[in-house]
Amino acid sequence: MTAPAVAKAPIQGLCHECPLPGACMIRCPDLVDRVMQAGAARVGMVPGAPPVPAALAPLIDHTLLKPDAVRRELNVLCEEAERHGFASVCVEPTWVGYCARLLARSRVKVCTVIGFPFGATLSEVKAFEAERCQDLGAGEIDMVINVGALKSGDIDFVRNDIRGVVKSATYNTVVKVILETTYLSREEKIIACTLSKEVGADFVKTSTGYGPSGATVEDIALMRAVVGPEMGVKASGGVRDFAGALAMVQAGATRIGASASVKIVSGAKGGPATPGKY
Amino acid sequence: MTAPAVAKAPIQGLCHECPLPGACMIRCPDLVDRVMQAGAARVGMVPGAPPVPAALAPLIDHTLLKPDAVRRELNVLCEEAERHGFASVCVEPTWVGYCARLLARSRVKVCTVIGFPFGATLSEVKAFEAERCQDLGAGEIDMVINVGALKSGDIDFVRNDIRGVVKSATYNTVVKVILETTYLSREEKIIACTLSKEVGADFVKTSTGYGPSGATVEDIALMRAVVGPEMGVKASGGVRDFAGALAMVQAGATRIGASASVKIVSGAKGGPATPGKY
Repeated sequence: MTAPAVAKAPIQGLCHECPLPGACMIRCPDLVDRVMQAGAARVGMVPGAPPVPAALAPLIDHTLLKPDAVRRELNVLCEEAERHGFASVCVEPTWVGYCARLLARSRVKVCTVIGFPFGATLSEVKAFEAERCQDLGAGEIDMVINVGALKSGDIDFVRNDIRGVVKSATYNTVVKVILETTYLSREEKIIACTLSKEVGADFVKTSTGYGPSGATVEDIALMRAVVGPEMGVKASGGVRDFAGALAMVQAGATRIGASASVKIVSGAKGGPATPGKY
Repeated sequence: MTAPAVAKAPIQGLCHECPLPGACMIRCPDLVDRVMQAGAARVGMVPGAPPVPAALAPLIDHTLLKPDAVRRELNVLCEEAERHGFASVCVEPTWVGYCARLLARSRVKVCTVIGFPFGATLSEVKAFEAERCQDLGAGEIDMVINVGALKSGDIDFVRNDIRGVVKSATYNTVVKVILETTYLSREEKIIACTLSKEVGADFVKTSTGYGPSGATVEDIALMRAVVGPEMGVKASGGVRDFAGALAMVQAGATRIGASASVKIVSGAKGGPATPGKY
């Protein structure tokens, strides 16, 4: 039994766009188990497949969002993203133009955050911010929902708030919707996922990384169940090492937001949460 | 010796616009000491002056900025602000229109926050956000500086960032510049105060309330020394009771940002800092 056959098997409709070719044992252990039970003596990786932690690199948004980040830290961020092949650098709007210039000849995209981290600005401001960030080179847009409106029961308002940013996106811009799950009930998480899918967002994302808590395996599984296989799910906040990232992917995440990205792909064990930046 | 004479004495150029008439012993203990040493047997308050803690009410921006605030909490905030005579309610942009309607017949102003709390969005987004919030009824605008730019040495950028918001303000809008002192060196605090004064802001303000630490007496004294008597200085973040608020006023603050405003004016003692909201 060879791995490519495994990788191409239709698992939850995702294999054809699997971001982890050759990493079937990480991503789809159940299927691999079934293959083994069917008589395979050994399940191999594709020839030349990278070591397992490094295989996560294309799923990672390499993130630096602290308000006191300085130019030299952005230089390091972009250099690391290019070297490891991360999906993007995720930076504040004020750094989008700078990072876009640094990464102009790279495959690494620039991701930015809209209405961040509270999501409590005006809808038209979020849409304007998203537009201008794309003008400056952002290819991915992570917007924060209006948490207070959702918790006040203003569902139409929340829908229109997300829609405004989705509409501001050009056809090749990826829009992720940050739920900030730490503040939401299970029902509110389901509503936010449903609205995001309804208005055409590309991803739902758990957290800003600045709330009282971050991504959990349970939330990722719930969000994946609600949005189905067509949308992306991004785990962010508190993902500090390979084991943590792997657990999120196994639960259904197709993107990881992390500042400990280099640690994740090196397989090193994560340290304790940093105060104010779990 | 009567108190009005004390209140009218030219103390640091502030008496003519003293926000605490009759509270000379709070605001200017040194002058009162000198008056006593000159032979006064007793220093009185003006007739009908309120009890000391309540005298602080007109200096307080009654603040609710948490991302998960809901409508009923805003109702309470506005009702308390009217009842106690606070200077303003300080709310997220998304609540400006709602609070402006609630307070339409009141003397309490609506204050909002721009680029909050990280200050790391685009300058043009901050200016646009400020404009739209004024359209919706905000009479005071607390903007966060671009901390990363200041710490990267981009002084011109920081100046223009503040200037953009100041220029967006109509003649009767008060603009406060949040330094987020927790991230700044002494030199950077001085630069930020100097730039704010140079471009015509009305106040400098210490903190967002969401950084690792908040207002200190030392920072207030420094900021007052740099901006002189013409500008306002707002202490915010960690002001939880009357003693704390009083210390800030004595150090030179002319405005207090607090969520514990009712506790402050009732003279009750503040509790410990709430995690994530010092």
